[in-house]
Amino acid sequence: MSRGGRVPRRLDESEAVRLFARAFSARGRGIELGIGDDAAVLSLGRERLVFTVDAQVEKTHFERAWVALEDIGFRSFQAAVSDLAAMGARPLAALSALNLPRGFSGRELERLAAGQAEAARACRCPIVGGNVARGPVLSVTTSVLGTARRPLTRSGARPGDEVWLIGDVGLAAAGLALFQSGGAQARDRATVRALSAFRRPRALLARGTALVGVAHAAIDVSDGLALDAGRIARASACRVVLEERALARALPAALLTLAARLGRRPLDLALTGGEDYALVVTGAAGQRPRFARRIGRCEKGRGGVWECTDGSSRPLAGGFDHFAS
Amino acid sequence: MSRGGRVPRRLDESEAVRLFARAFSARGRGIELGIGDDAAVLSLGRERLVFTVDAQVEKTHFERAWVALEDIGFRSFQAAVSDLAAMGARPLAALSALNLPRGFSGRELERLAAGQAEAARACRCPIVGGNVARGPVLSVTTSVLGTARRPLTRSGARPGDEVWLIGDVGLAAAGLALFQSGGAQARDRATVRALSAFRRPRALLARGTALVGVAHAAIDVSDGLALDAGRIARASACRVVLEERALARALPAALLTLAARLGRRPLDLALTGGEDYALVVTGAAGQRPRFARRIGRCEKGRGGVWECTDGSSRPLAGGFDHFAS
Repeated sequence: MSRGGRVPRRLDESEAVRLFARAFSARGRGIELGIGDDAAVLSLGRERLVFTVDAQVEKTHFERAWVALEDIGFRSFQAAVSDLAAMGARPLAALSALNLPRGFSGRELERLAAGQAEAARACRCPIVGGNVARGPVLSVTTSVLGTARRPLTRSGARPGDEVWLIGDVGLAAAGLALFQSGGAQARDRATVRALSAFRRPRALLARGTALVGVAHAAIDVSDGLALDAGRIARASACRVVLEERALARALPAALLTLAARLGRRPLDLALTGGEDYALVVTGAAGQRPRFARRIGRCEKGRGGVWECTDGSSRPLAGGFDHFAS
Repeated sequence: MSRGGRVPRRLDESEAVRLFARAFSARGRGIELGIGDDAAVLSLGRERLVFTVDAQVEKTHFERAWVALEDIGFRSFQAAVSDLAAMGARPLAALSALNLPRGFSGRELERLAAGQAEAARACRCPIVGGNVARGPVLSVTTSVLGTARRPLTRSGARPGDEVWLIGDVGLAAAGLALFQSGGAQARDRATVRALSAFRRPRALLARGTALVGVAHAAIDVSDGLALDAGRIARASACRVVLEERALARALPAALLTLAARLGRRPLDLALTGGEDYALVVTGAAGQRPRFARRIGRCEKGRGGVWECTDGSSRPLAGGFDHFAS
């Protein structure tokens, strides 16, 4: 964790995370992994506990005009559990802390909770407690506890590894853009798929546990492939090269269709769109599971790099900053 | 958990909690205790995990004009850990999810986090992860994980038990009233003590673990003694009688001094003021620890009852509803 430096007047997300991590640089008995990965890892007897929290806030992460309350409940829960998937952990239980605005009705709470309960069943991660409080906007904070014998981290990537993509990227961003542009009424297959990716993402729990003992490093794509691949590079102190040629082959046809309709480049949606909760993983070439697609490689060096089809390359940048929005 | 009944248009806190509990009535492998107590209890191998979350929201639970950011961090953390104290659990680790308003500076984040870190050290409960998100007001959500061999619950009170108070009640409410009335500038001992009770409450962790094997039921007083004693009565299906004569003897002199100054009745502050994080406990008369004061008794019957010095009695009611405020 980097230290020092002046605190800027205007706090962006990465600076907030840096200050937060510095304040709590937790070391102590039983703490195997503190702040800085997808989840914390605690040892307890023979068990390893994986512990993480995620918040989704109205007007920051969603607008109630675009997303049904059931979907807000469902996707906020999956987003939190996705961090367990990236660690190769199995869910044990979750807590839900809700801030509810004035005027939020009992019926609305039931719809929100129904979406959470549906996601909890799908993830086999029961909601065992929580908190309800009054707040100016709807805010859903989900804490998740899981177990993992050998947790996957962001920091195990090695030069020579392949970079794998598991699940799709860009579709949730296309779905959001359709909501924003009023194009969400269409009923063609590509639209339905993108709206579903945005409204009903799925934490890739089974994929995550299947990667234990195979993958060297893993992260879930919550803030965009470019940003999250860069996080593996930083945590692993190696260079992560994403290859345009390989990523282009891995994009679903629906993304190409919708990008054309939205006037966006499909690779931009794939690189900077978050909230698909795909996994980015590194591992040895011979070990790649059938459900993983190769999209790049690890090398000696630093940082995330984008390698264009013409052979040129540039630093990977971008991703979605919920603070700047 | 009660079921049925129409959902009212206007959602109050108890109705929100009821709907929440109904949506997630968690049963499943390893869940020993779900929604409805101070914390959930999970069995994992030989261990019992105690898992809870608490949120403090600006303008609902605090005003930044009255409370320093360090204090907001400190008291929100202690409030969450207090649920572990009430279960007789030992803290393992915590997560902190912060919603930060636009314009919140890096320096302000450092001050908030410094208060959280100080409380985490005091509770030996390291903050191992978290989340930062943009929100319209400051909101601090703290998830806490602990262990307990034999957790104390709300549901073990029996007719014939004494009701014990551990720690003080009413002082935090007096401190809040001093802030609200502009009386917080005074430097006399009573004022200092009440302001400290409000700004720097302490989760009674050592008292909680000392009660394991001694107490029959326990709860922490977060919403006022009247309301929380009633919760023990409901969970234990017995009557909890608080005795005016006994409670009056247990009040600290500082509360009498300040109540007179504020034009409030000390017993009202004690019964309805929350956020002291005292413990209300039941147990057999011969087992009462030296640090516990007797304030009532359990009987066959239902509900919380207030027994006046003149022998009359009435149902206990009151407490602070953060939804109604």
